[in-house]
Amino acid sequence: MKCTRCGVLAQTDLPWRNAAFCPDCYFEFFSRQVRKAIKDRRMFGPDDRILVALSGGKDSLSLMCELKRLGYDVTGLHLDLGIGESSVQSRAAVAGFCEAHGLPWRVVELASDGLAIPAVKKAVKRRPVCSACGKIKRYWLNRYAFERGFDVLATGHNLDDEAARLLANSLRWDQAYLAAQGPEMEGGDHFVRKVKPLYRLTEQETACYAFLRGVECVTAPCPYSGKASFTVYKRLLYDLEYARPGAKFQFYEAFLKRGRPAFQAARPDPGDLRCADCGAPTREIDNIPEAERGRDPLCGVCRLRRMAAAGE
Amino acid sequence: MKCTRCGVLAQTDLPWRNAAFCPDCYFEFFSRQVRKAIKDRRMFGPDDRILVALSGGKDSLSLMCELKRLGYDVTGLHLDLGIGESSVQSRAAVAGFCEAHGLPWRVVELASDGLAIPAVKKAVKRRPVCSACGKIKRYWLNRYAFERGFDVLATGHNLDDEAARLLANSLRWDQAYLAAQGPEMEGGDHFVRKVKPLYRLTEQETACYAFLRGVECVTAPCPYSGKASFTVYKRLLYDLEYARPGAKFQFYEAFLKRGRPAFQAARPDPGDLRCADCGAPTREIDNIPEAERGRDPLCGVCRLRRMAAAGE
Repeated sequence: MKCTRCGVLAQTDLPWRNAAFCPDCYFEFFSRQVRKAIKDRRMFGPDDRILVALSGGKDSLSLMCELKRLGYDVTGLHLDLGIGESSVQSRAAVAGFCEAHGLPWRVVELASDGLAIPAVKKAVKRRPVCSACGKIKRYWLNRYAFERGFDVLATGHNLDDEAARLLANSLRWDQAYLAAQGPEMEGGDHFVRKVKPLYRLTEQETACYAFLRGVECVTAPCPYSGKASFTVYKRLLYDLEYARPGAKFQFYEAFLKRGRPAFQAARPDPGDLRCADCGAPTREIDNIPEAERGRDPLCGVCRLRRMAAAGE
Repeated sequence: MKCTRCGVLAQTDLPWRNAAFCPDCYFEFFSRQVRKAIKDRRMFGPDDRILVALSGGKDSLSLMCELKRLGYDVTGLHLDLGIGESSVQSRAAVAGFCEAHGLPWRVVELASDGLAIPAVKKAVKRRPVCSACGKIKRYWLNRYAFERGFDVLATGHNLDDEAARLLANSLRWDQAYLAAQGPEMEGGDHFVRKVKPLYRLTEQETACYAFLRGVECVTAPCPYSGKASFTVYKRLLYDLEYARPGAKFQFYEAFLKRGRPAFQAARPDPGDLRCADCGAPTREIDNIPEAERGRDPLCGVCRLRRMAAAGE
């Protein structure tokens, strides 16, 4: 097979894009998709200070790599979840990558804020810890970026992540989540702007980029993920994509054009509640449980921190 | 296995409902779902004159059968599509069923309105005729019910039909279709109220009812359906249901509660255009093609009729 752009031997085949590329042209293709995402969704400009969330996986490291190549002002942030050997390896992958490429990076150890994931897992008992972990990660990424004055927080979510999350939100018709999902989310009071520059690229395409660039990343799944529900949605979308090549991207793009606006228009006023512990406003804060109404409200993360402390 | 209600030997197993029934209790279960649909969605009352769309398949005949048993004032309407032997058999199934049960029924031959489906198929050329056929059926069912003063039009759509259509509309984020989909649709100028009393029951459950009641129905698919796209969505929902029993129904119910209202609020004013041929208002009328703007608009069906006439 020949490269669609330059005619030399291709090493990557992307049937749903009717294209095949040699490594150099693949990098150009990948870069063009990232540039288009940044431009179309007005994610950030050359003067913005960008905090890039680095888990140590292929998506986040590829994102950091590409944004640096495009000349943006990037700083990495790794959240050390404190999950034994898994976290040690993730942190080592981030350190290795950033040091090899001379990229600035920071680390926040969740344990230092009483939120090591094993303690949280104990506190949430039989429920899977994934949603609590996601909440804590979003909280700390936002908090770090906001407190240090970064202009924008970039995460490595790819098209498969985004489409699977959209499918999950759609199957539940979760109005608040549907109003808030997208490759760019405005900042505001206590919230930094958030962007997903890889949203036009599939998981396979990001994996291919990481491989061709020789990015050394962690590949083992989280030891707590178990049968994560996301895989059900990813599999359904895989089947849909197989039957209708391009359907996954169309689903997501059509949502941004015609779905999200309807839910944003219907979104209720978030009010002006603030967390009694950390002072964050109610946006992204859990619904307040019956038992706590009338009392000073806590945000979801501060509640988890108290639960984890009580369980020790 | 024993009947969940009465303890005798069960003949039907409904795992996602955690139930199994003997025939008598199955009829009671089925009837209760239909009664709940009619009551919850305020479909119609005992004094309403109901026109029931009868294709000759299991769903429509089961619906007619159950509504009659519940004591409602029902009249059947069969649309003869004029598709050779297939249509002959469908009409015979409707005639046989209605005559065996002493039920009133009427027939409209689409050929008499210049809309025999084979002629329409020729006119739409390479495109599948299914969407044109669906449009014509909706048009004639509504027109007949409206002109003869029926209070409501009932169709045999089951949960699988509705959920698959919802999934298709959601994947495209088609605002107008999402605003208009549901088990009840208000009537208005030129439009009769439309209801789907079987929307709480799956395809399998309706098939089981038809079998146990000895309803003789047509089972052959339409010779024109080919690889209908609906089957892709039905298969995806089948896989989802397998992974998460009950997910299909939850998807549909959550849409009615939280999805549809957002799209109804965002729906643009339909305006007051009317079809130059039949006088129907613009609701459910096709978008007007560029070439016809400024001229008297035609509704989708009247345009198909002209195309079919031109092709003869």
